Amino acid sequence: MAKRKKCIGILTSGGDAPGMNAAIRAVTRTAIYHDFDVKAVYRGYKGLFNEEIVPFKTQNVSNIIQQGGTILKTARCQEFTTKEGRQLAFDTITKHGIDALVTIGGDGTLTGARIFATEYNFPIVGIPGTIDNDLYGTDRTIGYDTALNTIMQAVDKIRDTATSHERLFFIEVMGRDAGFLALNGAIASGAEAAIIPEIATQEDQLEELIKNGFRKSKNSSIVIVAESPQTGGAMHVAELVKKEHPQYDVRVSILGHMQRGGSPTANDRILASRMGEAAIYALLDDQRNVMIGIRNDQIEYVPFIKAIKNDKPINRDLLNTIRILST
Amino acid sequence: MAKRKKCIGILTSGGDAPGMNAAIRAVTRTAIYHDFDVKAVYRGYKGLFNEEIVPFKTQNVSNIIQQGGTILKTARCQEFTTKEGRQLAFDTITKHGIDALVTIGGDGTLTGARIFATEYNFPIVGIPGTIDNDLYGTDRTIGYDTALNTIMQAVDKIRDTATSHERLFFIEVMGRDAGFLALNGAIASGAEAAIIPEIATQEDQLEELIKNGFRKSKNSSIVIVAESPQTGGAMHVAELVKKEHPQYDVRVSILGHMQRGGSPTANDRILASRMGEAAIYALLDDQRNVMIGIRNDQIEYVPFIKAIKNDKPINRDLLNTIRILST
Amino acid sequence: MAKRKKCIGILTSGGDAPGMNAAIRAVTRTAIYHDFDVKAVYRGYKGLFNEEIVPFKTQNVSNIIQQGGTILKTARCQEFTTKEGRQLAFDTITKHGIDALVTIGGDGTLTGARIFATEYNFPIVGIPGTIDNDLYGTDRTIGYDTALNTIMQAVDKIRDTATSHERLFFIEVMGRDAGFLALNGAIASGAEAAIIPEIATQEDQLEELIKNGFRKSKNSSIVIVAESPQTGGAMHVAELVKKEHPQYDVRVSILGHMQRGGSPTANDRILASRMGEAAIYALLDDQRNVMIGIRNDQIEYVPFIKAIKNDKPINRDLLNTIRILST
Amino acid sequence: MAKRKKCIGILTSGGDAPGMNAAIRAVTRTAIYHDFDVKAVYRGYKGLFNEEIVPFKTQNVSNIIQQGGTILKTARCQEFTTKEGRQLAFDTITKHGIDALVTIGGDGTLTGARIFATEYNFPIVGIPGTIDNDLYGTDRTIGYDTALNTIMQAVDKIRDTATSHERLFFIEVMGRDAGFLALNGAIASGAEAAIIPEIATQEDQLEELIKNGFRKSKNSSIVIVAESPQTGGAMHVAELVKKEHPQYDVRVSILGHMQRGGSPTANDRILASRMGEAAIYALLDDQRNVMIGIRNDQIEYVPFIKAIKNDKPINRDLLNTIRILST
Repeated sequence: MAKRKKCIGILTSGGDAPGMNAAIRAVTRTAIYHDFDVKAVYRGYKGLFNEEIVPFKTQNVSNIIQQGGTILKTARCQEFTTKEGRQLAFDTITKHGIDALVTIGGDGTLTGARIFATEYNFPIVGIPGTIDNDLYGTDRTIGYDTALNTIMQAVDKIRDTATSHERLFFIEVMGRDAGFLALNGAIASGAEAAIIPEIATQEDQLEELIKNGFRKSKNSSIVIVAESPQTGGAMHVAELVKKEHPQYDVRVSILGHMQRGGSPTANDRILASRMGEAAIYALLDDQRNVMIGIRNDQIEYVPFIKAIKNDKPINRDLLNTIRILST
Repeated sequence: MAKRKKCIGILTSGGDAPGMNAAIRAVTRTAIYHDFDVKAVYRGYKGLFNEEIVPFKTQNVSNIIQQGGTILKTARCQEFTTKEGRQLAFDTITKHGIDALVTIGGDGTLTGARIFATEYNFPIVGIPGTIDNDLYGTDRTIGYDTALNTIMQAVDKIRDTATSHERLFFIEVMGRDAGFLALNGAIASGAEAAIIPEIATQEDQLEELIKNGFRKSKNSSIVIVAESPQTGGAMHVAELVKKEHPQYDVRVSILGHMQRGGSPTANDRILASRMGEAAIYALLDDQRNVMIGIRNDQIEYVPFIKAIKNDKPINRDLLNTIRILST
Repeated sequence: MAKRKKCIGILTSGGDAPGMNAAIRAVTRTAIYHDFDVKAVYRGYKGLFNEEIVPFKTQNVSNIIQQGGTILKTARCQEFTTKEGRQLAFDTITKHGIDALVTIGGDGTLTGARIFATEYNFPIVGIPGTIDNDLYGTDRTIGYDTALNTIMQAVDKIRDTATSHERLFFIEVMGRDAGFLALNGAIASGAEAAIIPEIATQEDQLEELIKNGFRKSKNSSIVIVAESPQTGGAMHVAELVKKEHPQYDVRVSILGHMQRGGSPTANDRILASRMGEAAIYALLDDQRNVMIGIRNDQIEYVPFIKAIKNDKPINRDLLNTIRILST
Repeated sequence: MAKRKKCIGILTSGGDAPGMNAAIRAVTRTAIYHDFDVKAVYRGYKGLFNEEIVPFKTQNVSNIIQQGGTILKTARCQEFTTKEGRQLAFDTITKHGIDALVTIGGDGTLTGARIFATEYNFPIVGIPGTIDNDLYGTDRTIGYDTALNTIMQAVDKIRDTATSHERLFFIEVMGRDAGFLALNGAIASGAEAAIIPEIATQEDQLEELIKNGFRKSKNSSIVIVAESPQTGGAMHVAELVKKEHPQYDVRVSILGHMQRGGSPTANDRILASRMGEAAIYALLDDQRNVMIGIRNDQIEYVPFIKAIKNDKPINRDLLNTIRILST
């Protein structure tokens, strides 16, 4: 009797990130190349409850590498956080003959994957897909480079008008717990400062900013603020400054959801392609409970627990770089 | 004794718009080609008080056609709205030997120009530079096409994430008194609806929207809202909808100042180049108190009074187009 | 007995152009809104021989407005130029119950449509889709604005390096019989000259160029050349110049096929949406044998014969504009 | 008596690369911050002969971070390759009171710098600026990421038309001695293959390609070819294929000089900012005869001799990745 082919399930979960489609394409095609069946699960873990599960062939992922978002859709899934929910999920997985799972997403996605994988001793490999770049054990996450460029291009546009009007702009970017986008976005756009959640309070950062004499000249200034309870957001920071310096012509711009979309950059497509390929090699290699990371341009397997529990350190020297380069 | 060359002053005023630099380049080079001197006035009418006036040669406008914003800066100028202020401005103009003025800007700019030109019988030619496209007598204003494309590209990005998450987005775009950006931005981005200041109240538009069964399907939806007291803005509209339809996953995004910036599109550069050239021909032709317009691809001279006082009609049929094409 | 719904066939033919998908979407949805059935014919007229004909619902055209190319594919079709071929095509159309056809394409597409419509007294409405903008009776064709912006952006990039190295660049753009892209691309990119097929010989244009003292200064220069037997192409022009002026550091760049692709601009999407909608109104209005045109922002029905047989005039004054603005 | 400030000269040489301006800005501002004088040398080493040397203040580098090309211009310089030439250069440097030099460029630039630094025991620090990414000792060179994205975006556009017409495209990209752009450009754009100078002959690569059954399906295909004597270029490869497979609808596109230009990506701006800052720290640190490199996100000082003499290895596994992911 013919032995049944092994079957790999694939899903995207949590916030979407540009490059997720490139990862879906890479996982699917590498799996098929190595003689697996592939089943796509729609709407993240939710698809395990709704049984939105579709067999994928190589054509299902044609012409998606350049598309933002995720063709598999994504959703938050309350059920998966309960023991009963995960039992149901496991039943569905068994019913559909799925032997291993590749999940693409951020912190929450990997946390869910880890619990499930442990409870049911089920092989799961994670791929880090989040614009925030806040997963430990990988130099970059899928979507980060695209979001960084989207931010930079938006700030370039705002600088045109800031310069023409000689204004002080506070621009809010994503990054609830991590300042990678704000910090590097500020360097890339030649901003005067970045206010990030990793550093004490925003008052200290602002005080330092003002003490160091920014806006000595009459020129326009741009400050990038990470959207975070730690910073209070751009609106809050702007009001603090306006109170102290009513003479400034202050404006606020919140970049918002457009940071999550757009055709992925070359870096994100390449990263996603390599990680997607590596996820299948990890499974062939009998790995489980690991996230695919990239360190110094080398693929690494990072245990879920390590990726989730550790804070990814940010290079604080770059705050100094911003200050020196915008003098 | 050698006859003094005639001298043309040039300034940008009001909100900046992409393509203003292309217009500055065209005015400067056409003037020099026709043997005028050129003097650039910085910071709009303010430069007539601060005497920020600089002789311009052909090199001063090299390599600016592709730049957003305005190299001449722009500012609102309270003084110019007073009789005393305008007298001072006239004195400066006389002192600097400026024989005619080309002003680039929107409604407020032309209004100021008209009063000044009448009071002092001074030759002024206006060029319509505003992203809002709300000047009568010209099919398009400089900056409108670029802003429209900026909006469309931002909505394209948001649609990636809207589709992945199956959300209902309200996206706010500029256009205090005119819905051109919202209406055409909605068509270009395949949005479900546009809420514009020209149409009664936003409640009616929303009611109609909901009555017509938008979001019958489970798919994501995008509604473009003009930022205007008439519409109440995207946040206001979103709250109305959430109250009626708490089941929707509603999000708001305010595109903000980035709509004013960016490298101008081909259309805006060509429009600005042709209008800048035409402004000099108008002066050679002893025209004054006119705005350069373009109608049916032909240059026209539009009396200031006509350009300012008339509301530019919007094509309401396009609201229907949006509705049919997003079914 | 229930009366059969009327059925509209839709196809794209000839060279692809950005915005064709927006037109397909508009035709499909307007048709369905007005209670027609829609059948998509793949690969242009070829699909009438291979019977690649697929019923289209509103979902078939979801999320395509922003995509370049054509989801219906396109091909040249030898068979359709013969009487026997067209008889076969008519048989297929009858077999599939198609009552009218909307064809999207350029000169060749409309020519084929016209012959077929006349021979079989079959209702066909054409939509002008070609980047060359060379169809009479419409101010713009679908794809032209996108191609123009693609050219401009490429030239902007080349100018960076041209300026850094102080070189003379000849850049070849599409436009076999029409210089719209070269002429307007030159204005938009601030080039020194455009060499277009409408004007006598390239030698004359070059001679004029050199006589008028271009490259007096040491700066870089860019000349846009339409790819055409009339101009000889950029390589040919460059060699003529190098022979006369061996001191110039001459380079050639041929933009090539990328000019046909890319996400359509706002203008092209709006144009395609309005034309697609209008094509169905034309059929409802019992029009046939007409191309949808847009003149002075108004939709017009242009008889095929008029659209095909007439040369679309180009605004030669703009050659002068280029010359003055690049001094 | 007041001690004279130390003075740092800065120049760009060889082929220009996007991000050079960000590096110039970073070098200038970091130097001034650390109390150096800065003198800009125009047109590479040539400026040392023509004495095109200009003192730079912080404002000289305002608003250039987003610009492609180099504001310092660049040129090849024959004189600098001779002993007499270098003596003249040294005399100029002495005359202008330049105490150290920062040179931004590729292989040739660093080679010249090394010889000069050795001959005159003069402190020079190099910054790797070249789109080819072919300098040893640094993970990335300035300009590479921008060129990679430019290539990807061009191929995205070509794929639109390739897919619509079902063609086989050979696209030529830069990379005379190094396949980084071709290899990674192929992954990023989802191409079917990359033909690079590092691998034996193009015949072998093609044979392998065809043997592995590419174009089994009817779909379009894209092959990226590095412009190199080793590969023969896209035209050559296309002709080999056409001879063997006359049934294919083959097209060639040569991306050309636009690959060198454009506004730099976030990565290139950040890389250039960090390297520019580091160059001054290297001088403060009494380093000389070193290139600034970045390895595993850490700044490193790479002796010129090491950077120049070693071939940078390419990751050949990625050829396999391309093959698997395009099946």
